[in-house]
Amino acid sequence: MYDLIIIGGGPAGITAGIYAARQKLNTLLITKSFGGQIAKKAVGIENYPGFKEISGLELIEKFEEHLRKQDIDIKTMTEVTKVKKKDSSFLVWTNNKGKFESKAIIIATGTDPRLLKVPGEKKFIGKGVSYCAVCDGPLFADKEVAIIGGGNSGFESALFLKDWVKKIYILEYDSEIKADKENQGLVERIEKVEIITNAQLKEIKGSKFVESITYQDRISKKEKTLSIDGVFVETGSQPATSFINHLVDFNKKREIKVVFETYQTKTPGLFAVGDVNVGKFKQIVISCGEGAKAALAVFDYLTKQ
Amino acid sequence: MYDLIIIGGGPAGITAGIYAARQKLNTLLITKSFGGQIAKKAVGIENYPGFKEISGLELIEKFEEHLRKQDIDIKTMTEVTKVKKKDSSFLVWTNNKGKFESKAIIIATGTDPRLLKVPGEKKFIGKGVSYCAVCDGPLFADKEVAIIGGGNSGFESALFLKDWVKKIYILEYDSEIKADKENQGLVERIEKVEIITNAQLKEIKGSKFVESITYQDRISKKEKTLSIDGVFVETGSQPATSFINHLVDFNKKREIKVVFETYQTKTPGLFAVGDVNVGKFKQIVISCGEGAKAALAVFDYLTKQ
Repeated sequence: MYDLIIIGGGPAGITAGIYAARQKLNTLLITKSFGGQIAKKAVGIENYPGFKEISGLELIEKFEEHLRKQDIDIKTMTEVTKVKKKDSSFLVWTNNKGKFESKAIIIATGTDPRLLKVPGEKKFIGKGVSYCAVCDGPLFADKEVAIIGGGNSGFESALFLKDWVKKIYILEYDSEIKADKENQGLVERIEKVEIITNAQLKEIKGSKFVESITYQDRISKKEKTLSIDGVFVETGSQPATSFINHLVDFNKKREIKVVFETYQTKTPGLFAVGDVNVGKFKQIVISCGEGAKAALAVFDYLTKQ
Repeated sequence: MYDLIIIGGGPAGITAGIYAARQKLNTLLITKSFGGQIAKKAVGIENYPGFKEISGLELIEKFEEHLRKQDIDIKTMTEVTKVKKKDSSFLVWTNNKGKFESKAIIIATGTDPRLLKVPGEKKFIGKGVSYCAVCDGPLFADKEVAIIGGGNSGFESALFLKDWVKKIYILEYDSEIKADKENQGLVERIEKVEIITNAQLKEIKGSKFVESITYQDRISKKEKTLSIDGVFVETGSQPATSFINHLVDFNKKREIKVVFETYQTKTPGLFAVGDVNVGKFKQIVISCGEGAKAALAVFDYLTKQ
C-alpha cells in the first residue's frame, strides 16, 4: 500500500514526485516514459526559469535525474488502464505491471496527440507515421515527409526536420496558416518546405512502409497524391484521461475539473495537475508549480486522515 | 506608459518578467535586489526541478541572467512606496527613482523579516543586527553571535554560520524548539552552538557596534546578558504589502487575496503572485508557476481592453 501513486512522468508528475518523496511519502510514479510535452519540443526551451536556453532532451534528463535522486519507486514502460476507489484507498491497474494500491493519487498524464482518423494511420504507426518529429526525425534522413497541421507545433517540427530530410510538405486544412508570425518567417526561408493550405487529408498509403498520402483540395475538390516516406501528425492534442471516468468531472475538452490551489478533483484524495486539468495556461513551469502544490496538498490530506 | 509593471525580483517576479517580455509586453520590473527568499537560503536548494542541488546564490544568478536576456526594463536598488489607480491605469511611486505608469501591475514582493521590536534593534541594523545569515555571516568571522528564533530558518542559519563564527547562541522564546528533527540532529553535533529556550529578548546593546544582548528567562524571570558581536533575526516573516492598501483585500496575515489561476486581486489589472498572496504553499517553483500564470493572464487582460 503506497501513500501516493503519481500517474505521468512529465514536468508535473516529476515535480510532484520530488516533493512527495521529500515529504517522506511512500510514493510510486507510473509512466510510459519521461518528459511529457517536453520530449516532443522541436525547438529549444527558453522559458523555464534558470535555463536561458535548453533542448527538451537535456531538460528531461535533468528532471529525471533529479527525481531518481529521491527515495521513490518508479515504473516506466507501462500504462495505467483503470483507477477505482476501494473504501478509502485507490486501486490502479496497469497494462503490463499488475495492480497497485494507494491512499492518494495524482494524475499528471498530460495530453496525447489527436489522431488523424484516416485510413492507413493506425496501420503505419512506427512505419512512417509519427507523432513526434524530435523523436523520429533522424529516421527520415534524406527522405521526403509531410507534416499534417499548420500550427506552431507543425512549423516547429519543420524547423527541426529541415536538417534531416530532403523535402517537407506542410498540409493545413484551413485556408490560413495558424503558426505565429515568427515561426512563419523562419519557415518561409527554407526552400525545401512547401506549404499547402485547404488540404484535407484522405488516406495514407504504402505497402510495408508509408509511400504516399492523398488529400483533397477543399477549393477545387480535386484529389491529389504526394509521394512521401513519412507523415508527422501535428494536429493538436487531447487530455490523456481515458483510464479515469466517474471519479472525476470533465469540461467539454475532457480536461479534468479541479479545485485550484490544491488541484483536488471531486473525489477526495484524487488530484490532477498539469496539462490534463482545466487550467487555462499550459507551460512547463506552470505544470511544475501545480505538481508541487498537489504533493503538499496530498501530505495535508493524508495527515488529516 | 508601460503595459506592465512587476514589483519584486524573487522567483515569482522574475518568472513573470520572462513571460511578459516573451509575450512582447512593454514591461518594467522594480526591485530592491534580486533573489527574494532564495537570497536568504542558508542551505542548498534541492527542490527546484532541474537542479539536484544548487546554492541560493547560484540559482538567483541563473534567474537574473535569464531575465536580463529578455527585452525588459529593470530598476534595482529602489523600493515602491505607493500604488494608485488613475482611470484605467496605475501610478507607481518609488523612493528614489521617480514615478511610473502602467496598464497592469503584478505584485511579487514576497515577505519581509518580522522585526524583533526591542530597544537597539533599529539602531544597530548593519552594525551587528542582520536579517540574513547568508548575506552577512562572513562579516562575523571568529566572532560570537546570537540567532533569535529556534525554527528551521534559525537552525539553518546556525548550520551556515558554524563555518564562520566562534560561538553561536540560539534563543527560542518557547519552551520547545520548532525546527524539524533533521535540522535539530545536525545542529546538536556542533559544539559551538548553545540553545537557550524560554528566552525573551529584551534589548540589544553596544556603542558603535553590537556588544551584548539581554534576555529574560521566562521561567525564573531573571534577566541575563550575553556578550556577543552579532544578532541574526530569524523570527519569521510577513507579507511585504505596506505600499498597497485599498486596491486589494487582505487576510488576517495581511496576505493579498487573489482569484486563483489568474492571481488577479479585487482590482482589475492588479495581480499578486508568490509568497505575498494568500496561497497556502510557499515554494520557489510554486512562485515561478504563479508568476508565469499571472503574466499570461495580464496578456489576456490587456488584449480584452
